[in-house]
Amino acid sequence: MQNYYAGNPLNRLSYLRSSPSFLASALESPKASFIPLDSLQPLCKNDKDGVRRLLTIKWSDVQEFIGDPKQVFHGVDGKRDEDVPELAILGKEAARLGKSKVGELSPQEKRQYFLNQPALVFLGVDERSAPESAKSLPLSKPDDNSTLESHSPHGEPYWAIDVSSCTELKKQILIKNERAMFMELRSGAQTMPNEEASIAAEARSLVDWNTRNRFCPACARPIRSVWAGWKRSCIPGEPSGEGADAEPACVSRKGVHNFSYPRTDPVVIMAVLSPDRERILLGRQRTWPARFYSCLAGFIESGESLEEAVRREVYEEAGIVIGEVGYHSSQPWPFPSSLMFGCWGIAESADAEKDVRVDLDNELEDARFFTREQVLKVINSTKPMQLSREQIAKIDGQGGPARDELDAAKRKADEQGAFMMPPATAIANTLVTAWATGKLFNQHPASSTNASSKM
Amino acid sequence: MQNYYAGNPLNRLSYLRSSPSFLASALESPKASFIPLDSLQPLCKNDKDGVRRLLTIKWSDVQEFIGDPKQVFHGVDGKRDEDVPELAILGKEAARLGKSKVGELSPQEKRQYFLNQPALVFLGVDERSAPESAKSLPLSKPDDNSTLESHSPHGEPYWAIDVSSCTELKKQILIKNERAMFMELRSGAQTMPNEEASIAAEARSLVDWNTRNRFCPACARPIRSVWAGWKRSCIPGEPSGEGADAEPACVSRKGVHNFSYPRTDPVVIMAVLSPDRERILLGRQRTWPARFYSCLAGFIESGESLEEAVRREVYEEAGIVIGEVGYHSSQPWPFPSSLMFGCWGIAESADAEKDVRVDLDNELEDARFFTREQVLKVINSTKPMQLSREQIAKIDGQGGPARDELDAAKRKADEQGAFMMPPATAIANTLVTAWATGKLFNQHPASSTNASSKM
Repeated sequence: MQNYYAGNPLNRLSYLRSSPSFLASALESPKASFIPLDSLQPLCKNDKDGVRRLLTIKWSDVQEFIGDPKQVFHGVDGKRDEDVPELAILGKEAARLGKSKVGELSPQEKRQYFLNQPALVFLGVDERSAPESAKSLPLSKPDDNSTLESHSPHGEPYWAIDVSSCTELKKQILIKNERAMFMELRSGAQTMPNEEASIAAEARSLVDWNTRNRFCPACARPIRSVWAGWKRSCIPGEPSGEGADAEPACVSRKGVHNFSYPRTDPVVIMAVLSPDRERILLGRQRTWPARFYSCLAGFIESGESLEEAVRREVYEEAGIVIGEVGYHSSQPWPFPSSLMFGCWGIAESADAEKDVRVDLDNELEDARFFTREQVLKVINSTKPMQLSREQIAKIDGQGGPARDELDAAKRKADEQGAFMMPPATAIANTLVTAWATGKLFNQHPASSTNASSKM
Repeated sequence: MQNYYAGNPLNRLSYLRSSPSFLASALESPKASFIPLDSLQPLCKNDKDGVRRLLTIKWSDVQEFIGDPKQVFHGVDGKRDEDVPELAILGKEAARLGKSKVGELSPQEKRQYFLNQPALVFLGVDERSAPESAKSLPLSKPDDNSTLESHSPHGEPYWAIDVSSCTELKKQILIKNERAMFMELRSGAQTMPNEEASIAAEARSLVDWNTRNRFCPACARPIRSVWAGWKRSCIPGEPSGEGADAEPACVSRKGVHNFSYPRTDPVVIMAVLSPDRERILLGRQRTWPARFYSCLAGFIESGESLEEAVRREVYEEAGIVIGEVGYHSSQPWPFPSSLMFGCWGIAESADAEKDVRVDLDNELEDARFFTREQVLKVINSTKPMQLSREQIAKIDGQGGPARDELDAAKRKADEQGAFMMPPATAIANTLVTAWATGKLFNQHPASSTNASSKM
């Protein structure tokens, strides 16, 4: 089962992110596509059928803002302190400093230079048009001569670039691409073809991570991008934040640690079923649009297994004790960078419907079991669910005032009738629909059972 | 299937982490147990049968180092800027400052106070001895009067406390507990009962996260613990790291963000099978002990589904194209805070054995398919696998020189014979054993199929 935002067609070639020569050739390639993001919103355009499409630009469009490709990735492996790059990426902004090498900057200029350097992320290569034999040719360890041609001759590189602070570049992009707009991925994605949305999701998560993580959480030094956006390291030689005198090496420079790498937050979301599996538990938060119900969900905590997180969340949010738990499918959720693990769980008590209570963690306003008939009625409704930007903000907890009296009245009237569910782009919809149509329980592998694999 | 480090018996009561009155009563309760950790090593002792046991201490042991429970959690919800606690937790250390309120400290003293405040984490309550009816009594939203008694009358609270910098406390603990030692969880865990190891795992991950994240990655301000160790927030009113003049509010104070909460890194680890499912792919890294083989594994990246991460890792590490992928079980791995998703994948090509190549990402020294017979021979070996501290360090990539010539010779001699696998405490062992004994493929739910749940 492939959920929306999954199915990314790019070959990430993750092992080449530390190769300056490969990255430089993938950057300046005429085959390269750049996804510009303004405040995390990718460039989009509606086609003649009203379908939202992801727009990309070329190296020639961004070249003057990035600078010399050879310099951008100098020291990209982040291993040696002396590997400080020449000025790059800031382009015109950096040029204003009137200096071409980082070593020429004053400590304050250097700090500002790295803190304001826009994110540039290598997303992977599109090899879908390559003959099978030409994908990822045999090679030895990436070396000083690695290039796009030597590693992925038919690959079309994809990059994400944060243009939020590049006023001139944004202007040029919008002039050149008539009717194009920077659009929030979440509301825009509902009509965007899945493969484009999945690439945009990767771009959004990585640009977000690079943009919001500017200082080392261990030593407070400004950090800089290495590995083409997939790692961030302390700037060498910067005084630490604890006082100009003290300058201990950051603990992140050795040992097992994890804060240098992009963060992905695992989340459980579950179809909770009555013991006879004929009813499903859905809940709603106080701030959500009227009559909107969805699957229970929550972040997996440190020291919990997937199954334990499902049981804890359902108990804390709805007071229901869960027995058997299973996995259905997963979905990357780029707001900012979660991975949703879609599961099912069977309530243990035959009285589960009476056990529902939302006064433990008070996260939900209401939770209740719905019948298959009620759910199918919503699924088969002729008008597809489209959430407005305002409704999405409410679901994210960013809404303004709680829904008004009118909403409350509507909800009461419809209490036994139709309700709203998340759109097909959300894994909650996948889970509920799979249950309602008898496809929730994976039978793996498709062509075998344990019996046949026993000795 | 419950893996080692899973099965934590504590009820985390996560919704009470922001209640100062509940936390205070759970802290000073005579029923409370404290797990002291020195450099992330929990206090342990071998019992008369040589089984390693987790040791805990009581409130009376730590009281003088923590201070007034009412003050420790003042402002624990982190919502209001003025909610800055009185001096607490540092105990004797803080007393040396000769001041009792944070407001009395100079900016430099305040900064040092928060940066050096030892981690104190509420892990949950043990309610196993409580009658069913007494677990998590009905309640309204936690209020100013919430206590351990009102929310979990039979619960025994568990806390983790970092004693690394409390020399006097460490001395007292070791004098009071004869033959006790602070021991690395990883090597020690191999004989520790699972429930104790799972509590220690939660403690280790959370103390690690609190200890290593000292500055806000968005604004470089020192951060302090709120929510009893489960959230860290910027110290209000601190000048930001960008210059004493500028003092913008941190972006982490509003909107959707994730770096204030403990990080959990999702990892895929997989049993890769030949198309006929009669052989399993295992690999080894150059620095591992001789003849040591394990399942392929790697971090799930932003914008990837679980299944896509399995396919990418197997392709990048061993050149094998995977078709069907399924989930088996999961394991919290507290080094520092991963969650291992144990999966299986079926190689697509009948020639998979010939396709194996490790020259793409060069992460493995060798990868090969083993027969069921070879694997069963290792599993049924009479001597259980025990890794030395040195061998574990090698597996973690912290080892010294590569294995010596002797090892290489040994490996060659045994090439077709026995090899070493991870111990039973590792999910890699779970997966390999499940495959070898015909139990790898989950049939869910246990008592039903899709057919019976179809309408």
